[in-house]
Amino acid sequence: MSAWTVYLSGEIHSDWRERVVEGASALDLPIVFTAPGTDHDASDNCGVAILGSETSSFWKDHKGAKLNGIRTRTLLEKADIVVVRFGDRYKQWNAAFDAGYAAALGKPLIVNHPPDLTHPLKEVDAAALAVCETPEQVVEVLRYVTTGALAG
Amino acid sequence: MSAWTVYLSGEIHSDWRERVVEGASALDLPIVFTAPGTDHDASDNCGVAILGSETSSFWKDHKGAKLNGIRTRTLLEKADIVVVRFGDRYKQWNAAFDAGYAAALGKPLIVNHPPDLTHPLKEVDAAALAVCETPEQVVEVLRYVTTGALAG
Amino acid sequence: MSAWTVYLSGEIHSDWRERVVEGASALDLPIVFTAPGTDHDASDNCGVAILGSETSSFWKDHKGAKLNGIRTRTLLEKADIVVVRFGDRYKQWNAAFDAGYAAALGKPLIVNHPPDLTHPLKEVDAAALAVCETPEQVVEVLRYVTTGALAG
Amino acid sequence: MSAWTVYLSGEIHSDWRERVVEGASALDLPIVFTAPGTDHDASDNCGVAILGSETSSFWKDHKGAKLNGIRTRTLLEKADIVVVRFGDRYKQWNAAFDAGYAAALGKPLIVNHPPDLTHPLKEVDAAALAVCETPEQVVEVLRYVTTGALAG
Amino acid sequence: MSAWTVYLSGEIHSDWRERVVEGASALDLPIVFTAPGTDHDASDNCGVAILGSETSSFWKDHKGAKLNGIRTRTLLEKADIVVVRFGDRYKQWNAAFDAGYAAALGKPLIVNHPPDLTHPLKEVDAAALAVCETPEQVVEVLRYVTTGALAG
Amino acid sequence: MSAWTVYLSGEIHSDWRERVVEGASALDLPIVFTAPGTDHDASDNCGVAILGSETSSFWKDHKGAKLNGIRTRTLLEKADIVVVRFGDRYKQWNAAFDAGYAAALGKPLIVNHPPDLTHPLKEVDAAALAVCETPEQVVEVLRYVTTGALAG
Amino acid sequence: MSAWTVYLSGEIHSDWRERVVEGASALDLPIVFTAPGTDHDASDNCGVAILGSETSSFWKDHKGAKLNGIRTRTLLEKADIVVVRFGDRYKQWNAAFDAGYAAALGKPLIVNHPPDLTHPLKEVDAAALAVCETPEQVVEVLRYVTTGALAG
Amino acid sequence: MSAWTVYLSGEIHSDWRERVVEGASALDLPIVFTAPGTDHDASDNCGVAILGSETSSFWKDHKGAKLNGIRTRTLLEKADIVVVRFGDRYKQWNAAFDAGYAAALGKPLIVNHPPDLTHPLKEVDAAALAVCETPEQVVEVLRYVTTGALAG
Repeated sequence: MSAWTVYLSGEIHSDWRERVVEGASALDLPIVFTAPGTDHDASDNCGVAILGSETSSFWKDHKGAKLNGIRTRTLLEKADIVVVRFGDRYKQWNAAFDAGYAAALGKPLIVNHPPDLTHPLKEVDAAALAVCETPEQVVEVLRYVTTGALAG
Repeated sequence: MSAWTVYLSGEIHSDWRERVVEGASALDLPIVFTAPGTDHDASDNCGVAILGSETSSFWKDHKGAKLNGIRTRTLLEKADIVVVRFGDRYKQWNAAFDAGYAAALGKPLIVNHPPDLTHPLKEVDAAALAVCETPEQVVEVLRYVTTGALAG
Repeated sequence: MSAWTVYLSGEIHSDWRERVVEGASALDLPIVFTAPGTDHDASDNCGVAILGSETSSFWKDHKGAKLNGIRTRTLLEKADIVVVRFGDRYKQWNAAFDAGYAAALGKPLIVNHPPDLTHPLKEVDAAALAVCETPEQVVEVLRYVTTGALAG
Repeated sequence: MSAWTVYLSGEIHSDWRERVVEGASALDLPIVFTAPGTDHDASDNCGVAILGSETSSFWKDHKGAKLNGIRTRTLLEKADIVVVRFGDRYKQWNAAFDAGYAAALGKPLIVNHPPDLTHPLKEVDAAALAVCETPEQVVEVLRYVTTGALAG
Repeated sequence: MSAWTVYLSGEIHSDWRERVVEGASALDLPIVFTAPGTDHDASDNCGVAILGSETSSFWKDHKGAKLNGIRTRTLLEKADIVVVRFGDRYKQWNAAFDAGYAAALGKPLIVNHPPDLTHPLKEVDAAALAVCETPEQVVEVLRYVTTGALAG
Repeated sequence: MSAWTVYLSGEIHSDWRERVVEGASALDLPIVFTAPGTDHDASDNCGVAILGSETSSFWKDHKGAKLNGIRTRTLLEKADIVVVRFGDRYKQWNAAFDAGYAAALGKPLIVNHPPDLTHPLKEVDAAALAVCETPEQVVEVLRYVTTGALAG
Repeated sequence: MSAWTVYLSGEIHSDWRERVVEGASALDLPIVFTAPGTDHDASDNCGVAILGSETSSFWKDHKGAKLNGIRTRTLLEKADIVVVRFGDRYKQWNAAFDAGYAAALGKPLIVNHPPDLTHPLKEVDAAALAVCETPEQVVEVLRYVTTGALAG
Repeated sequence: MSAWTVYLSGEIHSDWRERVVEGASALDLPIVFTAPGTDHDASDNCGVAILGSETSSFWKDHKGAKLNGIRTRTLLEKADIVVVRFGDRYKQWNAAFDAGYAAALGKPLIVNHPPDLTHPLKEVDAAALAVCETPEQVVEVLRYVTTGALAG
């Protein structure tokens, strides 16, 4: 296989994607990374910005979330592997939604979260093939999966 | 169709399932309801209770969540309609996971949550065919869907 | 097979469903018929009646159409055979949408329309296994398909 | 993802496809566009032109529509995103058929039509992830979906 | 499993179906048998008899074959096991078509034909899980498959 | 759900199936159990017994294994849950094959084996939602999954 | 779409494939053609030539047909369009099998045969989107489908 | 088809993969080979090496097997053809698991094992389209399948 496609879902308020992408790049792994839009404001406002304003916040959110869904759903379905990251802020229900979506599609799932989230995330972890505490572990998993080699 | 199968996912700390089931029963709707186990303690402890104790809380949770997954996944796949309820407590990532799972399977999805959760749930709502604020609205949606009739 | 499930999609302003159902009943055919809601007002107003009023007619329509979709999509997917009827009034885009949906699911499709609609419906007819001009022909097709016998 | 494939279904009597394609090109979006044949006469006559004349207009239409279906069905199934445009002329049942077909395949659907068609198209819009009034909005949706960026 | 559904495709000019059904009945096997219409004249004429006459024999055949296809395709998809019988007369391309259709659906396939047809049927046999020379062998295969017991 | 279908694959030389079935029966669990043929001799000889003798042991085995496959494949695909038991004798490659087959179909998988087989079965266990050491644990898992209740 | 993949199934004793491929090449159509092995002797003998001799002609045929099936099945599943040609010699059951296989996969099907085979091929034709009498018509269909243009 | 993807599953303690790959390379076959990681120690230890140590050997194996599963499952699903090799050592249940997984996905399966394993592998062989005794036969099968030509 010439290249693996890995979708990086979840948290958009930390540098975890950069750490995964740069770590994989440093190892020259044969991976194409994809991701949702990570500009929080654009993600919230895209619906009304493009399709017209709404007086109701429900419909503003609805129109925006559907636009985001065009990208998210397409990239999830095209991914070979889905990584979902949960951080320590926000509800992050869209991350859990993506994990369920990926699981139902039969995509190999890697979950990344701090250990103190283990109990509330146990159903998500139970669907995963790897549960990582750090982005660096995600890189090591990807190295092993795509090359068969372990560090050192 | 003689009967519809409706899976009631999500919150287990309020009486919303009873309100939906009793409301549907009072209207004599042709619905068979299914649900996850709703005994919180059993849900947390089932893994070690049946398959043996663990010293690590991660594996205790893991074994339990997988047992819960046998029931959850089977009932989700057999449902005609999936209702997911979000309340105001807990992380509820498993509810969002179920919503994503149902969406990827193409199941018609009804979401029920208080209006103040609209913004963090916008991606979940965007995948739904109905967003209800109360269990009574869920009953009315089910009445309309299964019989074609509106209240009054 | 003990019974066939036949979904009757399309026109709701004539008696064609009654003619099909009564014709099949008179022949004692082993068929369970399903259909969308056929109360036009309920179909238009269900969204706001159940889920709350809207100031925008777009969202009023949107909420209603999604509720109708819960029923329509479920019954389409459960049907063995889908019949779609086009009459001489209205745009009937939802009938054509249902025909496309059924075709993509690989459901055997029977189309019923007056002959003067042949040209604009040619793509829909091309996906059908039978094109009938009258509901009585639909009954005869169903008799032949479910029993192997022709009239007379 | 190196490039997105977007299928442009529907109206063939206006310049909307050119406006979408040129708009996307001006923004250098990573999109490959596909479309049905847009020569109305060829579309009507292809069946008899290639496979032999018919005395019945039904079979003339039938043969042609099936040839068109080879292209349409293949491109719909290969598309990442399907855009369906409804204009103000003709029955356009094939556009609604394509929308239903795309929806059943789970393709993200973008609908484009003038606002006065909202009511008769409500079931089609209900299946869409974006409802645009103009081709320029389609371009902005595609820009956001494929790049994550909003205009300006 | 309370009952198995077995579809009996192919030859309609011998008594092989009766021999299979009666043999299974004598053994009280838990099987529901289904079959295409077996009235050759009805099968040839159904299209024009129901949907109107044709001057071209191609379209007469076409309309009839499509009606037959509604029954055939539905029953093939609902079958647990498909049996296809080839006799020594006629082209029987529809039998081979059904075998290919069943194979692509992943249905367990039992083929029944006289041994002198082995060479031209080798691709069909290669897709089968059992190749029988007689209807009585088909009955024995079904006995073993549904009950686990061998004769005598 | 009125009843769950549970397929019991694997070892045929111990009483584990009886222990599972009787344990479930004693608890009045809503389960219909299915299983492969468990008569070892019939399983080995069915091909030649029904379809004619072979001089080569390869083809004798081949014909028999394919007949067994008609039952096995059908019941695996119809099961809600698949249990696979590995004992301490024989190669049991067909048990591992069934486990892989069930996993690819997305069936919830319960594996039962003595603890000393953990290392060679680690890939099979990794695909399971429960790993039991005894048939009694299988019963307890099934009780919990189908009723939500734990023992005691 | 940069190129279409077209699988040419059926008759191997005439020059129809060359006529299709050369015709498409002369028009510079964006098509990659695939085909089964067309060396009749290799097709018959491949099983025993590679995997060892057989005393029974049934198993000789069986081993060969399965090897051919590896190629055939893979290329059918990868094709965008399947063309099946029936000539005037031989049983050609494998061609009809391929047509059924392609139909069940939902592949657009083009059938090519002389008009005197219409009646026995009516079920195959009924599943096709185009029925051609000559390879030159197949080329014209492919030209129209892939470019939207008609001859001259 | 420009290149075929062939996954080489099973035995990792002999040089069979090299013999297949080199044999195919010598013939310049249009094949891209993929394989699981073949470093036995890495395969056993990857879980704890990357994701943290375990005191229980069960969980050590479990974590490692799941990481291996990310690679294995992805490559199996992307393969055109799956080859599974059984040698004369070890339990090799993961090889049989892969064979079952590939069979359920409908992948053409080639099995390679010494003749003395025929009886215990009969169910695996029964799902295969070719059963080879040597890696050299695997190469010849691949040559024939991908080029249509036999040796010599």
